[in-house]
Formats: sequence, C-alpha cells, structure tokens
Amino acid sequence: MPNIETFENPHPKRNYVIRHVAPEFTSVCPKTGQPDYGTIEIEYIASDLCIELKSLKFYLQSFRNEGVFYEDVVNRILDDMVTALSPRTMVVTGSFTPRGGMHSVVIAEYPDEAEFADDE
Amino acid sequence: MPNIETFENPHPKRNYVIRHVAPEFTSVCPKTGQPDYGTIEIEYIASDLCIELKSLKFYLQSFRNEGVFYEDVVNRILDDMVTALSPRTMVVTGSFTPRGGMHSVVIAEYPDEAEFADDE
Amino acid sequence: MPNIETFENPHPKRNYVIRHVAPEFTSVCPKTGQPDYGTIEIEYIASDLCIELKSLKFYLQSFRNEGVFYEDVVNRILDDMVTALSPRTMVVTGSFTPRGGMHSVVIAEYPDEAEFADDE
Amino acid sequence: MPNIETFENPHPKRNYVIRHVAPEFTSVCPKTGQPDYGTIEIEYIASDLCIELKSLKFYLQSFRNEGVFYEDVVNRILDDMVTALSPRTMVVTGSFTPRGGMHSVVIAEYPDEAEFADDE
Amino acid sequence: MPNIETFENPHPKRNYVIRHVAPEFTSVCPKTGQPDYGTIEIEYIASDLCIELKSLKFYLQSFRNEGVFYEDVVNRILDDMVTALSPRTMVVTGSFTPRGGMHSVVIAEYPDEAEFADDE
Amino acid sequence: MPNIETFENPHPKRNYVIRHVAPEFTSVCPKTGQPDYGTIEIEYIASDLCIELKSLKFYLQSFRNEGVFYEDVVNRILDDMVTALSPRTMVVTGSFTPRGGMHSVVIAEYPDEAEFADDE
Amino acid sequence: MPNIETFENPHPKRNYVIRHVAPEFTSVCPKTGQPDYGTIEIEYIASDLCIELKSLKFYLQSFRNEGVFYEDVVNRILDDMVTALSPRTMVVTGSFTPRGGMHSVVIAEYPDEAEFADDE
Amino acid sequence: MPNIETFENPHPKRNYVIRHVAPEFTSVCPKTGQPDYGTIEIEYIASDLCIELKSLKFYLQSFRNEGVFYEDVVNRILDDMVTALSPRTMVVTGSFTPRGGMHSVVIAEYPDEAEFADDE
Amino acid sequence: MPNIETFENPHPKRNYVIRHVAPEFTSVCPKTGQPDYGTIEIEYIASDLCIELKSLKFYLQSFRNEGVFYEDVVNRILDDMVTALSPRTMVVTGSFTPRGGMHSVVIAEYPDEAEFADDE
Amino acid sequence: MPNIETFENPHPKRNYVIRHVAPEFTSVCPKTGQPDYGTIEIEYIASDLCIELKSLKFYLQSFRNEGVFYEDVVNRILDDMVTALSPRTMVVTGSFTPRGGMHSVVIAEYPDEAEFADDE
Repeated sequence: MPNIETFENPHPKRNYVIRHVAPEFTSVCPKTGQPDYGTIEIEYIASDLCIELKSLKFYLQSFRNEGVFYEDVVNRILDDMVTALSPRTMVVTGSFTPRGGMHSVVIAEYPDEAEFADDE
Repeated sequence: MPNIETFENPHPKRNYVIRHVAPEFTSVCPKTGQPDYGTIEIEYIASDLCIELKSLKFYLQSFRNEGVFYEDVVNRILDDMVTALSPRTMVVTGSFTPRGGMHSVVIAEYPDEAEFADDE
Repeated sequence: MPNIETFENPHPKRNYVIRHVAPEFTSVCPKTGQPDYGTIEIEYIASDLCIELKSLKFYLQSFRNEGVFYEDVVNRILDDMVTALSPRTMVVTGSFTPRGGMHSVVIAEYPDEAEFADDE
Repeated sequence: MPNIETFENPHPKRNYVIRHVAPEFTSVCPKTGQPDYGTIEIEYIASDLCIELKSLKFYLQSFRNEGVFYEDVVNRILDDMVTALSPRTMVVTGSFTPRGGMHSVVIAEYPDEAEFADDE
Repeated sequence: MPNIETFENPHPKRNYVIRHVAPEFTSVCPKTGQPDYGTIEIEYIASDLCIELKSLKFYLQSFRNEGVFYEDVVNRILDDMVTALSPRTMVVTGSFTPRGGMHSVVIAEYPDEAEFADDE
Repeated sequence: MPNIETFENPHPKRNYVIRHVAPEFTSVCPKTGQPDYGTIEIEYIASDLCIELKSLKFYLQSFRNEGVFYEDVVNRILDDMVTALSPRTMVVTGSFTPRGGMHSVVIAEYPDEAEFADDE
Repeated sequence: MPNIETFENPHPKRNYVIRHVAPEFTSVCPKTGQPDYGTIEIEYIASDLCIELKSLKFYLQSFRNEGVFYEDVVNRILDDMVTALSPRTMVVTGSFTPRGGMHSVVIAEYPDEAEFADDE
Repeated sequence: MPNIETFENPHPKRNYVIRHVAPEFTSVCPKTGQPDYGTIEIEYIASDLCIELKSLKFYLQSFRNEGVFYEDVVNRILDDMVTALSPRTMVVTGSFTPRGGMHSVVIAEYPDEAEFADDE
Repeated sequence: MPNIETFENPHPKRNYVIRHVAPEFTSVCPKTGQPDYGTIEIEYIASDLCIELKSLKFYLQSFRNEGVFYEDVVNRILDDMVTALSPRTMVVTGSFTPRGGMHSVVIAEYPDEAEFADDE
Repeated sequence: MPNIETFENPHPKRNYVIRHVAPEFTSVCPKTGQPDYGTIEIEYIASDLCIELKSLKFYLQSFRNEGVFYEDVVNRILDDMVTALSPRTMVVTGSFTPRGGMHSVVIAEYPDEAEFADDE
C-alpha cells in the first residue's frame, strides 16, 4: 500500500469540512475476478492533518488489481484514513456501477456513534 | 422462493450502511394479471450477516411471475430480508411505473419505531 | 363524487409509507372558467384500509369539469381521503402549472399538529 | 403600489402550506439603472386570508421600473405581504440572475424567530 | 488585497439570508503552479453591514494569480468576510474542478459551534 | 368547434418559423371513455395569416370532452389549421402520456411531399 | 404469439408518423436463462392499417418468458409488424439495460434501402 | 431606439459563426398591456462588422416597455441587425415563456432563401 | 489479446444497426503510467457475424494494464473488430474523462470514405 | 506563446476525429480589463501530426492574463493550431459565460469552404 501523505491543517481551530470525490475507482471482485468500478467520496473534518491529494490518488489506485468486496473496501479506506489523519470525523461512501442489474452503495462513518459497548 | 444467501459481515463492529438498488423488478398484478414494473431499493445496517448479491438477484427474480400488490410485495421483501439477515435496521422502498396515469411508491422500515404495543 | 374504494391493509401492524402520484389532474378555475392542470400526490401511512388505485383514478377524474380553487381542492381531497381511510397520517400535495407567469403549490397534512385549540 | 387583494381562507382551521413561484420578476438596479431579473417565491401558512393570484401578479409587476437592491426588495415584499395577509408564517425567496459573474439569493422569513429583544 | 466594501443592512432587525454564488473563481496551485478553478458560495445573515457585490467580485479576482491551497483559500475568504462584515452567521463553500481524476469541496462556517476551548 | 381567429402576418415576405407548444392538451379515449393527456406542438411558416394565441387555446380546449384517437386528433388539428391559415408549411406533433406502459407520438405535416398520385 | 390487432388508418392519404415507446419490455437471455430488460420503440408511417395499442402491449408481453437474443428480437418484432400492417416505412429500436457493464442498442428498418439483391 | 454599435470584424476573410444569447428579454403585449418574457438568440456570420455587446444589451432593453407581438419583434430585431451589420447570414430566435398554458418560439433568417420573386 | 468471439448474424439480409456502449473502459497512459478512464462505443452493421457480448467485455478488459494513447486505442479497437467481424460499416468512439482540466473524444470509422488514393 | 508540441499521428491513413474540450479557459476583456471565462473545444482530423495534450493545456493557459475579444481569440487559436498541425479539417468553438445578461459562442472552421478569393 502506498504511503498516505499529509500536510498540516492550515486552520486547525475551526471545524470545517473537506470532501474529495474520486469517480475513477476500480478494484477486482474477489469472487469472479472481474473488475468493479465506482466512485469513492471521502468527507472529513481535519484535526491536525489534511490528506495530500496526489498521495490520495495513488492510494486509491493501489486497489486497481486487488480483489476486495464492496462492503470491505469502504471500511478499509475509512480505517486507513483514520489511522493516517486522526480526523475529528470522517465519512467514506462508495457507489458502485451495476452488476447483475443492481447497483450498490456502502457508507461508513467515524466515529461510529452507535458503537457496541460490550464488543469493545 | 430461492434461498437468500449471506456472508459474514467483514466489519461487524461498525454501523455502516449498505444499499442495493434493483431497477429491473417485475411482478404481476393479482387483479388484472398484467405485469408490474419497478425499482426495489434495500438499505440496511448489517449485524453479523450481509446479503450475497447474486442470491439477492435470484430472490427478486422469483416475483417475476407471481401475483402480488405493491403494498404487499415491499413488506414481504422486508420480512424475508429481516428473517435472513437479522439486520440492525433496514428500509425497503419500491417505486413502481405508471398505471392508470399514476405511479406509486411504498416504503417499509425495520424496526418499526411506532409499533402498536398490543392495540391491534 | 365517485366512491373511494378501499382494501384491507395487508400489513396493518407496521407503519409503512404509501405514495401515489397523479400527474394528470385537471379541474376548472371557478373565476375564469378556464381549465387548471397539476399533479396531485397523496402520501399516507395506512391504518386498517388502503386506497384502491382504480377508484382513486376515478375520484380524481371527478374534478375534471368542476370549478374549484387550488387552496380548496387540495384540502378537499385530504378531507375525503381521511374520511374514507382513517389513515394514521396523510399529506396531500398539489403542484399546478403556470397561470399569469406564476405556478403554485399547496400542501395539506393530517393530523394538523398545530391545530388551534379554541377553534375546536 | 397596486392593492394586494385577498380572499377568505377556505380551510382556516388547518395549517396548510401555499407556495407561489414567479419566475418573471424584474426590477432596476438603483446603482447602475440596469434591469435586474429573478424568481420570487412566496410560501406561507394562511391565517384568515389567502392572496389572490391576479393581484399578486400586478403587485410584483409594480417593481418593473423601480430601483431597488436585492436585499431590500425581498424584505419589502415580505413586509407588504405580512401587512396584507397576517399569515401564520411566511418565507419570501428571491433568486437573481448573474451580474458580474455572480448570482445571488435572498431569503426572509416571518416571524423572525431570532429577533433582537433590545431593538424592539 | 482589494478593499471589501459594504453598505448598511436595510433590514437589520430581521435574520434573513443572503447568498452570493461566484462560479468563476480561479487561483493557482502553490505546489504545481497550475491554475485551479472552482465556485465560491458565500451565505450569511448580516448584522449591520451587507457586502457590496462589485467589491466582492474584485476581492475574489485578487486570488487569480495567487498560490493557495483549497483548504486555505476557503478559510481565508471566511476570515476576511467576517472581519469586514461582522455577520451574525456565515458559511463559505468552495467546489473545485477535477484534478488527478478527483474533485474537492471545502466548507467553513462562522461561528464554529464546536470550537476547542483549550485552544483559545 | 370554436372559431380559429387569425391576424395579418406582419412580415409576409419572409419565410420565418412560428411554433406554439401546448402541454396541457386533454381529450377522451373513444374506446375506454378515459381521459388522454399530451402536448400539442404546432410549427408553421405563415403565408398571409398568423394564428391568434387566445383562439388557439380555446380551439385546443374544445377537445377536452371529445372522444378521439391519437392518430386522428393530430391530423384533424393539422387540417383545421391549414384551412384557417393556408400556411406555407405546417407540422403538428402530439406527444401523449403513457397508457398501458407505453407512450405515443404522432407527427403530421403539410404539404405532404410524398402524397399518392392516384389517390388525388 | 398473440394476434396483432389493427384498425383502419383514419388519414391514409397523408404520410404521417406514429411512434409507440414501450419502456417495460422484458425477455430472457437464451444463453444464461437470465431476464433481459429494455425499451422497444416502434415508429412507422401507416399505409391502410394502424396498430391497436392494447394488442401491441399483449404482443410485446409475449416475449416475457421467451429466450431470444437482442439482435434477433428487434428484427423479429419488425418482421411481425410489417406482416401485420404493411406500413409504408417502419423503424424498430431496442435499447437494453447494462449486462457485464455494457448496454446495447439494436435498430432495424423497413424497407432496407441497401438490401442485397440475391447475393446471399 | 438606441444606436447599435459595431466594431471591425477581426477575421473578415473567414466565415465563422458568432452567437449571442440574451435570456433576459422582456417587452409588453400590445393587446393586454401585460409584460412578455423570453430569450433572444442572434447567430450570424459577419461581413465587415461585428456587433458590440454592450450596445446589443441596450438595444434589447429598448423593448422593455414597448408593445410588440412575438411574430413582430423577432423580425424587427433581424431587420435592425441586418441594417446595422450587413452580415453574410443571420438567424434570430425568440423563445417566449408560457401564456395561457402555451409557450411560443419564432425564428427568422437572413437571407430568406425562399423569397417570393414577384413580391420584390 | 483475448479471442473476439462471434455468432452468426440472425438476419444477414437486413442492414440493421447494433451498438454496444462500455462505460467502464480503463487503460494506462504510456507517458505518465497513470490510469485513463473512458467510455467505448462500438456501432456497426453486421455482415455475416455479430460480436458475442461476453468476449467483447474480455477484449476491452485486456487494455486494463496496457499503456496506449487515446488516439491509438480507438483505432486499434476498430482494426481488431473489423478483422474479427468484417462488418458492412463500423464506428468506434472513445470518450475519456478529464486530464489536466480537459476531456477528449476520438471517433474512427470503417470504411473510411475519404481514404487517400496514393497511399494504398 | 508556449510551443504547441505534436506527436506523429499513429493512424495517418484514416480520417478519424479527435476532440479536446477545455472548460477552464480564461482570458481578459481588452475593453474592461475584467476576466472572461469559457470553454474551448478543438475538433480536428489529423494529417501527420496530433496535438500533445500537456502542451495544449499550456498553450490555452497563455491567454490567462491577455486581453483579447471573443471573436478574436477563437480565430487565433484556430490559426495557431492549423499552423502547428496542418490538419485535414479543424473546428474551434468558444462558449463564454454570461456578461451583461448575455452569453456568447464563436465557431471557426478550417478550411473555410466559402473563402473569399481575394475580393476583400
């Protein structure tokens, strides 16, 4: 996995929203070996670090030939971003093109407000 | 009815949203015997199980030659999905093409927050 | 006025939404005698009864040659539907085509949460 | 200014919404003398009176050759309507076409929930 | 930086919304020296002062040949506007055209409801 | 049938195009007695006469309660207009809303370049 | 195959265009057994006969459970319509929903101006 | 009528197309005295002169309080432009907003290829 | 390169159009090594052979990790398809997503009506 | 002016179309000194040379701070491209954002079929 590079948040005292939308995401279906396509949207409120755009592009490209389910890839992107940025909040949305006549969307959020006490 | 197959939720500790949109739904009007057409959207937060996409396609196809009212089919899909997946929450929406110059939408939700204690 | 026919709600224990959209509504302006055109949308949560679609079509057609103001027709449809169905909640929306360079929308809701105590 | 004519609210006991949208509004910029163009939307819940559509058209036309700023015209329309109708609530929105590469929107509301105590 | 000119709010007792949308914003990427393009939207509730449109145009043009990051420019516009206008509330949104297959949005708000006590 | 009123073509020496689009057309299906809805578009190059807009409105309204097939109504409008206006050329298009899951368009033209010699 | 019913062309001396658009077409893929979906558009200039809309609906429904390729079904509909109507000209277009990430369109025309004398 | 100012065509040896679209046109209906609204589009191939944009704006504004029919105004604009510019070719299109439920388009062209010999 | 599989044209005596649209095309820029994305549309009139859809999908996927310019890839697809199908006519269109703030389209056609005599 | 770089046409024997669309064009109005914005589209059939995309970007950026009229800039881009590429045919289209309530389009073509021998 390529490094996710960051730069210092130029306005760390304000809770402002940053959203990057990447409509050229592609990965591979782990079941059929066929390519999947979709749009990944990352929206966050930065703490001390912002994500550098070029490294985000390379990071998302690293899934190009990797087999991964929709439900998994969105959560993994969220986990990787949260690790790299420690944002105040973040939402990652993946919208995938039709397969078998159906299209799918997966939306994961940090922090998870309704997390399950006893699981932790 | 075909089996609804599931796979293990890869991120069960997080409340993330999964949405599948199937614009090729068709059933038969029980009154006129004429085909009905619409889009079925299933949005849920998984507990331990996710729905497998291919089996969802076959499940929805099983209504192709079955007579069923709009109000009924959306609730039945919700009931079947809840039984198969035990999701944390689920919303099923059916949007049907015009009949008699009118089009219809039906939206059912689990759990039903305003359920009627035992007043029925 | 034609009879509004109903059928038994197939899932009376769940609060699910039913919406019918009729873009071919027409009535007559009581002031000018000119035809008015618009879309009537009826959205409700059924109690024990659902509205039968064909009788809804005939009901809406009964306004075709009747003189009635925008503000009045939407409220009258709401009243008639509430009488026929005793729904848990209902919203009727009328969106009318331009007259004199302006178009109009009227939205009425049952129950009216802000009803006026001293009037009742 | 032309008279704003009204008619009796046919359903005064219900809080229902009435919205009129007038996309053919034009006035004159008091600074440049150039015409301005926009859409005026008036949305209200009537008390005892509804606005008569034809007089609304004439009222809005009365700004055709009058010099008035965006921020002012929207508030003046709201004031005039509130005076004429004594509505339960009203929102007036003006959306103006581009000037200098920018377009503008002004939205004023009655009653103003956050009015300023000491000013009154 | 050009002066941000203001005029007296003609209706200072009412909390009404003013929104200016400038789709012709351009600046320069400080990293690559390449031009960036986007839409800046400024929405505020005025206190005593409103922003004069022509000076807003000149203010935004002052970024034309300046190197500035997306995250920075939106916050700087907000800071400059707050200084010039002392508005009751303000939101500045920048939506930028695709770079590297991704487009970005930044949204900053005043006052920042979730400001960080110990930082101040 | 109401009179189709005309006025003198103000520029009879030039072949210029006039198009009127009436999206509020309604008639009655002669087979089912149910209302039909559609848009009638009349495009012509005038000779000496132009159609007066108000009388066109009344003319089209005269079909409101008349039973007539799609294929017939478009040709009848063309015939009536040609009789009233003797235009250089005219095309009448009717686009009707869905019935039985299908929508229909009928387009008739004067003069008919491919008319059938032996029929005349 | 259901009978294609016709009615007499009410204006047989004029070459006017009739177009029916059926967005609810479905058949079965002969290779996979999976349902296909699409829109069938039939545009023709009638000779002595017009197609009756209800029988067209039943005719198109007869493909619902039949296995047939895109390229074949469009040509077969054209052949059946030409046999039933002997139109002056006809074009049949089928636009099918995505399969394997690709969607397809097939367009067949009668008469085929470039037909191959007997060189086949 | 304000002067239509021109500037020298910077590339007079090439037949290139210039199109100006003015969506803020307004005049007055000579019959009802009510304002009309529409979009005027002027497309031409210049000979030696191009139209200066600011003077075009003032020219079009001169119709603001003038009574003129749709069919007339488009031809008059064409005549005025042809007189001022002597273009190689020109097309003027007026698209007007709905009146009485119908909207209208008028298109006039210079030179008129099918002009009427004996009239000249 | 995967085999392009074909099947026998079921209606070889008619010149009918077949169009396949593949919005999920991706290749690699030979200069930067960065992925390119676009839509490939193949429209043809078959002679004796039609392209089999699944093999078309695999054929297009074979460019996934190959370095190729826009201008080249569209022509190569055309050449490969013409070799495999010997169609009567074919047009291949590639529409690519923005790079450097510009998007590109390439359209190649067989046969090339304006081919260059002396080159052959 | 930056160099327009080219590369060898990979398929010089075929007349295929190449189109580049640049929606981020900006220059300066020579009269007012204010920035202009628009989209430049270049469509051509290459002879021996194709335009290299990165140098096209830099070429278009060279107008960023240059004063030039709409009518002039489109013709100058065409002239520069024809000089650099000697294409078989080329069309350059500039679509500019609204100024004074009007937007403008300029379209120039090479070769100019109706060129004026030397009669100017």
